[in-house]
Amino acid sequence: MQNGSYGEIPEDANEHCPGPQSESAGKSNSCAGCPNQEACATAPKGPDPDLVAIAERMATVKHKILVLSGKGGVGKSTFSAQLSFALAAMDFQVGLLDIDICGPSIPKMLGLEGQDIHQSNLGWSPIYVESNLGVMSIGFMLPHPDEAVIWRGPRKNGIIKQFLKDVYWGELDFLVVDAPPGTSDEHISIVQFLQATGIDGAIIVTTPQQVSLIDVRKEVSFCKKVGINVLGVVENMSGLSQPLSDFQFKRMTKNGEEDLTEWVMGCLKEKAPEVLNLIACSDVFDSSGGGAAKMCSEMGVPFLGKVPLDPQLCKAAEEGRSCFSDNKCGVSAPSLKRIIEKLVSTQMAERMDDVA
Amino acid sequence: MQNGSYGEIPEDANEHCPGPQSESAGKSNSCAGCPNQEACATAPKGPDPDLVAIAERMATVKHKILVLSGKGGVGKSTFSAQLSFALAAMDFQVGLLDIDICGPSIPKMLGLEGQDIHQSNLGWSPIYVESNLGVMSIGFMLPHPDEAVIWRGPRKNGIIKQFLKDVYWGELDFLVVDAPPGTSDEHISIVQFLQATGIDGAIIVTTPQQVSLIDVRKEVSFCKKVGINVLGVVENMSGLSQPLSDFQFKRMTKNGEEDLTEWVMGCLKEKAPEVLNLIACSDVFDSSGGGAAKMCSEMGVPFLGKVPLDPQLCKAAEEGRSCFSDNKCGVSAPSLKRIIEKLVSTQMAERMDDVA
Repeated sequence: MQNGSYGEIPEDANEHCPGPQSESAGKSNSCAGCPNQEACATAPKGPDPDLVAIAERMATVKHKILVLSGKGGVGKSTFSAQLSFALAAMDFQVGLLDIDICGPSIPKMLGLEGQDIHQSNLGWSPIYVESNLGVMSIGFMLPHPDEAVIWRGPRKNGIIKQFLKDVYWGELDFLVVDAPPGTSDEHISIVQFLQATGIDGAIIVTTPQQVSLIDVRKEVSFCKKVGINVLGVVENMSGLSQPLSDFQFKRMTKNGEEDLTEWVMGCLKEKAPEVLNLIACSDVFDSSGGGAAKMCSEMGVPFLGKVPLDPQLCKAAEEGRSCFSDNKCGVSAPSLKRIIEKLVSTQMAERMDDVA
Repeated sequence: MQNGSYGEIPEDANEHCPGPQSESAGKSNSCAGCPNQEACATAPKGPDPDLVAIAERMATVKHKILVLSGKGGVGKSTFSAQLSFALAAMDFQVGLLDIDICGPSIPKMLGLEGQDIHQSNLGWSPIYVESNLGVMSIGFMLPHPDEAVIWRGPRKNGIIKQFLKDVYWGELDFLVVDAPPGTSDEHISIVQFLQATGIDGAIIVTTPQQVSLIDVRKEVSFCKKVGINVLGVVENMSGLSQPLSDFQFKRMTKNGEEDLTEWVMGCLKEKAPEVLNLIACSDVFDSSGGGAAKMCSEMGVPFLGKVPLDPQLCKAAEEGRSCFSDNKCGVSAPSLKRIIEKLVSTQMAERMDDVA
């Protein structure tokens, strides 16, 4: 079958229905065969007045950064959360906007579960973790945390538009936007809604294995197609690193497992105490293909660094804590900090005029 | 703000635009404020003739199983792939349909990268791994693997419909459908398209930490709302389990890391050889909240079992191999096998009439 028309950016990014793919090539942007064909043809077109309202809101935001990933579950929201914590700790005024409508993780990761959004005459108020770190997520709007948000694209786009138009952020140094995985409605919409106001660029988070990098390549090509600067790629879960003494030890038997942790610890303490405090590392996700660094050099985008898979970082995310506020995340926090400092210095240098 | 109207299932699941959320409550299903309001009102409604064509195609498929997840990156596609390999090894006739349009992982995980779909007068032909295991994915239609599929919902729904309508599966015992994470267009569409033909149910894959389980609860409530039976929940990446001798050992110094693997191995061989063959385990993702088992009992859905995080299983997925064909995945394959056998026996028992 011919397939040259797959994967292209929609020429008309409005929310009309491009119609199901026709079997013959070259019709991908036509409405042929679409049951809404007639309706689309009569839909009112023209500039969107909401974009003006969004531009006004965004006039007080200096830097807008998207956090993207190809695949889900790579730690994108964890990165967005820790990036926001870190920027706030550097005394920047920070906003964190979660546009993952069906799976909002940000409220939990910022320790804000169960909070409610309030409305003033200035608009919807973000929830504040600290006075200089405000957060907005659909998670704050759900009557029950188990509730599924079963929305098709147009409705998701509607709420994203409202987040941009109706949330009163005030003066912000950074607006960090945490997007869901993929390259679909939410991504097209956020770029379309923010494009006129300027987006600094996107940080793409990935894990090292090929199956994840395939999707990152798609994400990079999305950014290139829609004209978003790729600020860099972060390789997360880049091998597990954990003190040997934090492991449990088991023997597999025919009847199941036998826990030998106590015995092993005693044995090592007596016979080889010098190994107990070493860090044991495992390439959990296969990086034999060269990982994100190789992909970055192939695709000509910056590689920001690796963050090891650190159970303590996962725990901080679960508990809505900053990984920088104590020494528990000793394995991952230094790597994250280096990446964020690199990012901030580049952004500051490139847009000194705006910040000054 | 009032929020009672969030999270409900759309009353009209057709592809018309429900309009951006109005600030006042209770209007979530109206078109008020939507620029496409007029167009929607004039859109032709009525039964979809494609559903008849889908029902005809599906008449030769005995069991249809959806594989879902709340969050991405939990190993859903890995599970779908290994489930399909396992069913095929049990001599069932198996089809695997990948409806993750923006991030199709199935071609790589089945070792089918770079394959092209062919068309016959019977319809689109699946790609066959073995004579009894056919696969369909948008990944086979992309001219270049790096290409992003930048499609809004309606177009994704269109291709899903075509997969159901135009793919010639022939006689199948099982059609396994691998869905993207979330509860949006792809999920509403696949349920809507298949509902008349009967769906056996959904398997939901998760990791043990709370932030993932929050999204699984949403997925379970999605299934309940749309009337899909939850066959069970699989807890994947349930702690890393790996022979101690497969780890590397490092000491963190001020100047970076020092690799001490060789020294540690020598030391252990000499002083404590008995520990070298033990399995070292780490709760990578915090399961202190009780994990999937607790969530299942709270939500009244079956818990199917745990699969440990096994680097060898990740590697098998990367290389498109079945984890059951050799002994490399000794840590994870037995758990997966138990889960799949449990599933098959339940499905067979419940629908003996169909299978006989």
